[in-house]
Amino acid sequence: MWKHIQTLREEGYVIDARPRTGYRLTGIPDRLLPAEIRDGLSTRVMGREIDYSAETASTNEVAKERASKGAKEGLLVVAEEQTGGKGRLGRQWHTPRYKGICFSLLLYPPVNPSRASQLTMLAAVSLASAIRSETGVEAGIKWPNDLLVRGRKICGILAELSAEVDRIGHLVIGMGINANQDHGDFPEELQDKATSLKLESGRAVPRVRLLQASLESFERWYGVWMEQGFESVLATWKQMSVSLNCPVRIHTLDKSWDGWAETVDSDGALLLRLPDGSLQRLVSGEVSLRLT
Amino acid sequence: MWKHIQTLREEGYVIDARPRTGYRLTGIPDRLLPAEIRDGLSTRVMGREIDYSAETASTNEVAKERASKGAKEGLLVVAEEQTGGKGRLGRQWHTPRYKGICFSLLLYPPVNPSRASQLTMLAAVSLASAIRSETGVEAGIKWPNDLLVRGRKICGILAELSAEVDRIGHLVIGMGINANQDHGDFPEELQDKATSLKLESGRAVPRVRLLQASLESFERWYGVWMEQGFESVLATWKQMSVSLNCPVRIHTLDKSWDGWAETVDSDGALLLRLPDGSLQRLVSGEVSLRLT
Repeated sequence: MWKHIQTLREEGYVIDARPRTGYRLTGIPDRLLPAEIRDGLSTRVMGREIDYSAETASTNEVAKERASKGAKEGLLVVAEEQTGGKGRLGRQWHTPRYKGICFSLLLYPPVNPSRASQLTMLAAVSLASAIRSETGVEAGIKWPNDLLVRGRKICGILAELSAEVDRIGHLVIGMGINANQDHGDFPEELQDKATSLKLESGRAVPRVRLLQASLESFERWYGVWMEQGFESVLATWKQMSVSLNCPVRIHTLDKSWDGWAETVDSDGALLLRLPDGSLQRLVSGEVSLRLT
Repeated sequence: MWKHIQTLREEGYVIDARPRTGYRLTGIPDRLLPAEIRDGLSTRVMGREIDYSAETASTNEVAKERASKGAKEGLLVVAEEQTGGKGRLGRQWHTPRYKGICFSLLLYPPVNPSRASQLTMLAAVSLASAIRSETGVEAGIKWPNDLLVRGRKICGILAELSAEVDRIGHLVIGMGINANQDHGDFPEELQDKATSLKLESGRAVPRVRLLQASLESFERWYGVWMEQGFESVLATWKQMSVSLNCPVRIHTLDKSWDGWAETVDSDGALLLRLPDGSLQRLVSGEVSLRLT
């Protein structure tokens, strides 16, 4: 008995021991512990298996490793702190302990690799929905797959896949939500570029509940995508977008483009109307919103 | 001295020891030993680093493993025998010891994953060129990436990639050449579907030389592709094709299509003219050549 109590205490539960009365649970930690995540989770596949750690270099790396050993679809890899996380284009993405929610989902979508971008867009839609309904914060989507609030980054998404030329082997979608960071938790150079749900809503977010809602939302959208295709995902993505129908500057590897972000196509490419009236199709790049 | 001689003997070199005269090399083994491969190899990148083993489950798996540890572009993984090799769609591909040439190349092409199919087509073109010039055997390309001689399979190619949604991380191209197999070396069910260069040309193929020629040919075409794009690769692919401009049956995951193989597009998809006159675009599938 005592050993179990010790284990629970190590995991952050606060338990009082009273002579003759026994033990009393007086505090549940704000931890993303598997038992907490499973409690009340309504999904069938996403997050039914959980790989939890207090600290990891990158939840995507763990998920890829688990995939290579045969882990099943829906595996959730979650960590309280991510020390070597990456964003797109090899950028760093650090998540301080107990403040962010950073997790990866393992999927085996039976499709051509060219459809992978649809799934990052689907992830953006599910995260934005979950955030809006759980916290009331109006997260919007910036092409291709960041979530912003008032122009500041609140979530990042990074999908990585292993594939043959004509079919995906496995796909890992890593998602990082800035949940309970305070100003000082962001590196100085990001303080005016990033924000957190706590900063935006004025109160701490129950991380377990938001993670559950994200998993539920993802599973719902993934089902829609599998059964009906990409159309309704794309329609919702467009509604939630904050980088369409506005002037933007896009930085690609070798140049910058100024233009009007007109729409995205079914491969997730951005169609940019250039000043000369022509339409430029961009499959990747970094958007800055421009002031006109 | 004697220890070195023993090592060489273990690797298959035949060395006579004569009293007072010393040692004499009287036989060089037909092995794909790194020193043999490097001797006279004219590439700058492909095969400059070599991972050799007498036996491995799959050279692609070894190359992916090496990639995850930071191996450089051009790494050649070669094995004398492959026990768990796979073809496309998870099929087995067994290579008996010292008979086939099976190898994988590690690449870091800085492109979108949708262009990976161009590289398997490039691999088919380079292998067919190398085989034609080294052995005189007229290997032809069957869509998407097998090489055939007289309708029988002589090479298989399997590309696997790791990627973010908009850029390839690494790409491994595995190639298996049926070089010196005799009839009895093929499993019974493949004896009328597979052939070897030895069977076709009537003489044993110097495996080291053919591997060198394949590396040189691959490097040349890879340079063309990087500098000029896919066009001239595609033009040569079409010239070498044996499954265009002919009636075919294509088996896809969920159905079969009969039609006339009209051409391939710049993504490597096959454009099939159906009996009703419409054009069907197929990104993957298994071709049977039909008799009309």
